Amino acid sequence: MDMTSIAAAGLSATDQHLVDGVLAGRRRSLAKTITLVESTRHDHQRHARQVLTALLPHTGRTIRVGISGAPGAGKSTFIETLGLYLIEAGKRVAVLAVDPSSSVSGGSILGDKTRMEFLCQREEAFIRPSPSSGSLGGVADKTREAMLVCEAAGFDVIIVETVGVGQSETTVAGMVDAFVLLQLPNAGDDLQAIKKGIVEIADLVVFNKADIDERAAAFARGQMKAALTMLRSASPNWRPPVLTVSALAKRGIVEFWAEIERYRTTMTASGEFEEKRRRQAVDWMWNLIDSGLRQYFRSHPAVRSALPELSGDVAEGRTTPGAAASRLLAFLKH
Amino acid sequence: MDMTSIAAAGLSATDQHLVDGVLAGRRRSLAKTITLVESTRHDHQRHARQVLTALLPHTGRTIRVGISGAPGAGKSTFIETLGLYLIEAGKRVAVLAVDPSSSVSGGSILGDKTRMEFLCQREEAFIRPSPSSGSLGGVADKTREAMLVCEAAGFDVIIVETVGVGQSETTVAGMVDAFVLLQLPNAGDDLQAIKKGIVEIADLVVFNKADIDERAAAFARGQMKAALTMLRSASPNWRPPVLTVSALAKRGIVEFWAEIERYRTTMTASGEFEEKRRRQAVDWMWNLIDSGLRQYFRSHPAVRSALPELSGDVAEGRTTPGAAASRLLAFLKH
Repeated sequence: MDMTSIAAAGLSATDQHLVDGVLAGRRRSLAKTITLVESTRHDHQRHARQVLTALLPHTGRTIRVGISGAPGAGKSTFIETLGLYLIEAGKRVAVLAVDPSSSVSGGSILGDKTRMEFLCQREEAFIRPSPSSGSLGGVADKTREAMLVCEAAGFDVIIVETVGVGQSETTVAGMVDAFVLLQLPNAGDDLQAIKKGIVEIADLVVFNKADIDERAAAFARGQMKAALTMLRSASPNWRPPVLTVSALAKRGIVEFWAEIERYRTTMTASGEFEEKRRRQAVDWMWNLIDSGLRQYFRSHPAVRSALPELSGDVAEGRTTPGAAASRLLAFLKH
Repeated sequence: MDMTSIAAAGLSATDQHLVDGVLAGRRRSLAKTITLVESTRHDHQRHARQVLTALLPHTGRTIRVGISGAPGAGKSTFIETLGLYLIEAGKRVAVLAVDPSSSVSGGSILGDKTRMEFLCQREEAFIRPSPSSGSLGGVADKTREAMLVCEAAGFDVIIVETVGVGQSETTVAGMVDAFVLLQLPNAGDDLQAIKKGIVEIADLVVFNKADIDERAAAFARGQMKAALTMLRSASPNWRPPVLTVSALAKRGIVEFWAEIERYRTTMTASGEFEEKRRRQAVDWMWNLIDSGLRQYFRSHPAVRSALPELSGDVAEGRTTPGAAASRLLAFLKH
């Protein structure tokens, strides 16, 4: 596949201008490109694909960290403290969000920028609320693409925030290098996370607000460690550590980042870091293909006219799901 | 949709003979039809669809009960004791299995009929091991169809057994009316089930082998009840009960079946029983469509020749998943 030709073939002057602006790290170009990526208009999507293809060689030199936690776990404060610490250390930080509920509720995590009032004033930070394009899959696709744009713009750390809505944690875990579960030190929160299978996909577990009740935090940490020993690790080389921090009091942040760095070093040494990214990219392609196939199927004229009645027949037990599916699929011809 | 014409159009003499045999409740026809359904040969599949379509009007007058539990929970003994009790009560019972691991391990739950030595000698029972056709989806599709065949053959109760392999519990819960989680009264087992989100999809939770340590069983029951109050019920009209039984000592089986009957009555009264079956049938159709679409896509000549290279380009970061997906999808024409 000759990438240059794909990029060169369709890159208009406007698109090239966007590409150049992003690569130069211009904020305005960055924001405009993400807006283009998030647009649902067909012509915008075509341009977005071309811009992304041109930016792609400049992506990937970051660490992508997913941060999940129920409302009240202190995600904003944690991300703000972490972001300011990373900026002190000379890094540039982009914060994105996946919140499929934002299109329903109107509100959105990160929507209210005052939630990270210090971080959002910094030149070295870029904060973008969740796109509100409906389904979790759609929201996540946009965020993945925004992540690539931020990487091309030279950010060193990408933080993807999510709330515990439906499958959003699993989706975010599938797009980042390290997935962090932020918890409050109380048992109900633990059970929720264990129950939902989130602990299983976490690369790090962090108990926030540990300063409020140090004993409760230590206890929660012990409980979680015990629970983790019963679960199988995703990697033979990494057992998820459990930390206690207090984002508000700025305690434990240095140790947290040291663990993220240790994670990167360990996984890079074993080859799993790159392997995970490769797998994530191919999985993402297949997700897009699957939803494209559904669209293609539903928009097929013969399917469209037969589907409602056949679907009703299946629901009412007048035909079998197998017979209905094979009838509908028979409309497709190569 | 004129069902008679579909059925009549393709029903050969052999197929009609199978249909008549199944409807007459002949064991040999039943077994042969399920073998036809399980075959992966294309012509067999076509015949199977026609036979199933002809049988469909005679299905559905049963209760479908899923029984899940880790190895050692005592599923076979529980099902045998339950089956014999139901036969005493004048019912005919079919036992099927969904075990996606059977194709890997060679072994299979229910494969060893001596595991239910009394039940399998009874005329009123029909026991069929898990089909071993590879993926969970494939195995489950065959079991669903076998279930319809058993229903047409006049069985009153269909029991679908599964082990906790991957997503098999969720899949079985999606094909039965009532999903039962069989547990041992120890905390590790509890945590596993809570962790995997199985408790959430259970309509009944049963602690087996309660006679071994009655105190432990009572304690486990209390713990589970407490955990259940924290989870949201699938139905506003049904809070999953937690029972203790001893299948070996034949204790608690009457009470268990009374709960299943109460479940059916409650859900039928609220309309949820029929609604759930309708939804399951339509979901099943869409699963078949999705896998058919993937097959259609992968067998498209242009896709087949472009896929390996594009997939490699995505993995190596030479092209974006979005660009690759849209290129491949562009090969499909209506």
